[in-house]
Amino acid sequence: MNISGRNKLPGKVMDIKSGAVMAQVTLEINGQQVVSAITNDSVAELGLKPGDTATALIKATDVMIIKQ
Amino acid sequence: MNISGRNKLPGKVMDIKSGAVMAQVTLEINGQQVVSAITNDSVAELGLKPGDTATALIKATDVMIIKQ
Amino acid sequence: MNISGRNKLPGKVMDIKSGAVMAQVTLEINGQQVVSAITNDSVAELGLKPGDTATALIKATDVMIIKQ
Amino acid sequence: MNISGRNKLPGKVMDIKSGAVMAQVTLEINGQQVVSAITNDSVAELGLKPGDTATALIKATDVMIIKQ
Amino acid sequence: MNISGRNKLPGKVMDIKSGAVMAQVTLEINGQQVVSAITNDSVAELGLKPGDTATALIKATDVMIIKQ
Amino acid sequence: MNISGRNKLPGKVMDIKSGAVMAQVTLEINGQQVVSAITNDSVAELGLKPGDTATALIKATDVMIIKQ
Repeated sequence: MNISGRNKLPGKVMDIKSGAVMAQVTLEINGQQVVSAITNDSVAELGLKPGDTATALIKATDVMIIKQ
Repeated sequence: MNISGRNKLPGKVMDIKSGAVMAQVTLEINGQQVVSAITNDSVAELGLKPGDTATALIKATDVMIIKQ
Repeated sequence: MNISGRNKLPGKVMDIKSGAVMAQVTLEINGQQVVSAITNDSVAELGLKPGDTATALIKATDVMIIKQ
Repeated sequence: MNISGRNKLPGKVMDIKSGAVMAQVTLEINGQQVVSAITNDSVAELGLKPGDTATALIKATDVMIIKQ
Repeated sequence: MNISGRNKLPGKVMDIKSGAVMAQVTLEINGQQVVSAITNDSVAELGLKPGDTATALIKATDVMIIKQ
Repeated sequence: MNISGRNKLPGKVMDIKSGAVMAQVTLEINGQQVVSAITNDSVAELGLKPGDTATALIKATDVMIIKQ
């Protein structure tokens, strides 16, 4: 299976915080934290839990650039 | 200056491809490619060029998760 | 492979229009047109062409609702 | 009134789950479920309830493509 | 017709720049420029041209916050 | 620091509503309400509170256009 989304960053689930509708999943990717806000239903359907290997998927049009 | 966007991944500009409206900027972040699609006007205003230090900014609600 | 993105709508590629950076891919899904704007690089990497079976992937936070 | 968003998929509200800030609205569109995460304020302002006719609105730049 | 998208900012079209796939539409809203990147097909279908009255529509989950 | 995101609209925080994961921040920008949905963690990290000067940051690809 191939996905058009340009950015697939493999990492590990560090933490999951659940609300009524949304959940916040914190990944560690190359020693850096990456935070994702997805639905609770997604967390349940994927059976996500801390320690899992997981990949962040990000569409190129959703990436901004900061220049110092 | 502080930005709510949860994910700020520092890297280096590797390549810029420009169209009439949009540009594709490829960053290297921790040895991995991250692709951003922003407007040409943004590239010009930031004066982005290969070799620049730059940071990818990604809102948490734009990060999906893939589980293998 | 499992993706958190809630909406996966299977269909068929009807048309691809390519610019310098972005491409517009039109799918037919249940007799209805669905338009996607992705990078040309994605079209090339997936080898997308009219007639292909393909699935639209849409994150729940990107779906608005209109009420008549 | 005309909206630039390319994808307007008419359907019916099947379920609404409300949190403190966000709500998850499940539509049935051509026999398929489409999930939307919008604010509770939007649900209230639109007076959305199960059984309502409603349309999913999705910008083309938010549609990814999966190829099997 | 009612749209869940929280932010509808009325203004005037100042400029349209067209590429092969995407177009950049600049609005003036309360004396400030707001830039939108939509498909060329949307510009054509809406018949957008400089001087038109138009409204920017932005989903709340797409608004970040900067604090100085 | 320079951000590629085209739209930076300065305003004032009027209201913050917090859930378990997400928060809704209402800004007043040129006499008009702009609503943002960000994570609670962002609100805490920025120390956002009503009365604060703050700026809405919106990527051009997230701006749709409505024509009456």
